[in-house]
Amino acid sequence: MIRRYVVLAPNAFVQSAKTAHGVIAYGSDPVVAVIDSSCAGKRVCELVPHLARCDAPVVASLREALAFAPSALLVGTAPIGGALGDLRVGVLEAIAAGLDIVSGLHSMLAEDEEIASAARKRGVRLYDLRAVPATPVFSGAAYAIAAPILLTVGNDCNVGKMTVSLELCAAARRAQRRWNFVPTGQTGIAIAGWGIAVDRTIADFTAGACERLVLEAAEQQPDAIVVEGQGAINHPAYAPVTLALLYGCAPDALVLVCMPHRTKINAYATPTLPYRESIRLHEALLASVKPANVIGIALNTRGLDENAARAEIARARAETQLPADDLVRFGADAFYAEISGALGKREVRSV
Amino acid sequence: MIRRYVVLAPNAFVQSAKTAHGVIAYGSDPVVAVIDSSCAGKRVCELVPHLARCDAPVVASLREALAFAPSALLVGTAPIGGALGDLRVGVLEAIAAGLDIVSGLHSMLAEDEEIASAARKRGVRLYDLRAVPATPVFSGAAYAIAAPILLTVGNDCNVGKMTVSLELCAAARRAQRRWNFVPTGQTGIAIAGWGIAVDRTIADFTAGACERLVLEAAEQQPDAIVVEGQGAINHPAYAPVTLALLYGCAPDALVLVCMPHRTKINAYATPTLPYRESIRLHEALLASVKPANVIGIALNTRGLDENAARAEIARARAETQLPADDLVRFGADAFYAEISGALGKREVRSV
Repeated sequence: MIRRYVVLAPNAFVQSAKTAHGVIAYGSDPVVAVIDSSCAGKRVCELVPHLARCDAPVVASLREALAFAPSALLVGTAPIGGALGDLRVGVLEAIAAGLDIVSGLHSMLAEDEEIASAARKRGVRLYDLRAVPATPVFSGAAYAIAAPILLTVGNDCNVGKMTVSLELCAAARRAQRRWNFVPTGQTGIAIAGWGIAVDRTIADFTAGACERLVLEAAEQQPDAIVVEGQGAINHPAYAPVTLALLYGCAPDALVLVCMPHRTKINAYATPTLPYRESIRLHEALLASVKPANVIGIALNTRGLDENAARAEIARARAETQLPADDLVRFGADAFYAEISGALGKREVRSV
Repeated sequence: MIRRYVVLAPNAFVQSAKTAHGVIAYGSDPVVAVIDSSCAGKRVCELVPHLARCDAPVVASLREALAFAPSALLVGTAPIGGALGDLRVGVLEAIAAGLDIVSGLHSMLAEDEEIASAARKRGVRLYDLRAVPATPVFSGAAYAIAAPILLTVGNDCNVGKMTVSLELCAAARRAQRRWNFVPTGQTGIAIAGWGIAVDRTIADFTAGACERLVLEAAEQQPDAIVVEGQGAINHPAYAPVTLALLYGCAPDALVLVCMPHRTKINAYATPTLPYRESIRLHEALLASVKPANVIGIALNTRGLDENAARAEIARARAETQLPADDLVRFGADAFYAEISGALGKREVRSV
């Protein structure tokens, strides 16, 4: 079933509507309108340069958006802590207008009495992308997966780990290889139609949830498995999720995704890690569990001019002696070709 | 209210009844009997040498245990994954006999229809030690706590992090100082009567739960705060909880608790980390977040003879140049005196 999405992103579409941007860039269901009164009257492609393929209009209200015949409302923002807050009014309006609701918030719509009751009465469906299944404790079964497993890690949240994962899978497709994308967050789930929002699982079972995801991806016998990473290993709040992915996915290799001009972890005073320090820390953590190396640096140079971007890529290469590139700005094929040779199975440690 | 506990630990009391051992050693409520048919007829002090102060009998059935007038059943084991499984029959029997139930399992008794309904009908109470409150995302508020914060970390689960934390607080009491114990697991909560089972919280909020605990402990303006650690930083399943404590408690110093003859993480093939590697890894993780050092090594030499124990302590001192001792075997006062000087506030990084 194809959904026609209207995105709800009040005062947030340009700066912090990560879920909406991901679905617009990589999803198969079209976005027909965006609600954000702060930039109403523009089109998506005018506001967000890397979403050039989308000319959906930005409007000020749901009433205007309904002219474009949406079938579902996508809650397009992911505020810290993921609470519903000011979005409630917009969600209730959309339910009243007969739209299904797709949300990646921590607050579960289905558990909100007002929203659940309104949806029931109006006969619309609520999709909580972050609702998680019960998963077992990490068992080590992932160590026996035949396909090499690649995990993206990053210097912060929201720097492009999912995008790089998707771009690598697309480059593999162009090269006639099947690299299977593993969604681990609400946006990836909205795009791929499966996955687990691992940040929503109970901490003792988070590595187990990661393991279940790679086991599920392995069932299709892909040439490689590419896992969307989360957070950052020195993120004061979200690093536990990062570490769960690092151990639970049993990666054979890592790609480090960095926004180089992000000097501090967003919303914290913690400095982001320089390339070599980050590589050392990830590899040191994996050394005793299942050794793996960082095999490439994927840069997000958005906001830098082209010369500055190329200089930063050259610096990353020189400092790390690893392949480095901006896969969105300069294409993913060259980087894919460079790293795919280094992505093999490592010695497997059995439980 | 004082509870008189009967402990339920079928086939598990000696080897894997961590919660029961902790409550017997450090709790204020007495254990009057233990149910474990595999060692019925003995007394606790005969079976577990370090529980010498407890002469409660081990019996084969609840019926026999009732002769000792218990008021509550303590589920004494914490199996991997924390499921109820075979314990269900024993819990239902105890409810039928009118006992309250105290459980630290992941499976919540209150959410189990059969058990909840039986308890309601019989008028007994269910205490799920691992039931957790909703907590906010880590904010950095913990960085402003005036008292120095000490966190125990370890080379595996179940090596003595809680015990060392409690022994240090007791040593501080003897030295007329108030070191406030922070319980982070079901056994610590059963002993201290407050706390959060942080391994049960949602991964995005685990560091926030740790922060809330140290903020709560700080309200009493203690001389220091001592946090019970969990897991191990290279534990394939539980390291995310370890890291959440490492960042979320904002420690000023760490004590590394090791069972030196534990060469592999329990139930996994992952080797435990040698002292210096473990110190390096913990300090490297903290370096960019809030720097802190390991200031001592607390060894659990249970199972080694006295000469071997003293040799291991000497080796730990020589390898790390840090205070090292077995606080249970040789007393905690000397180690307390050695480390308390090194426990000061570090430069605080504000958010």
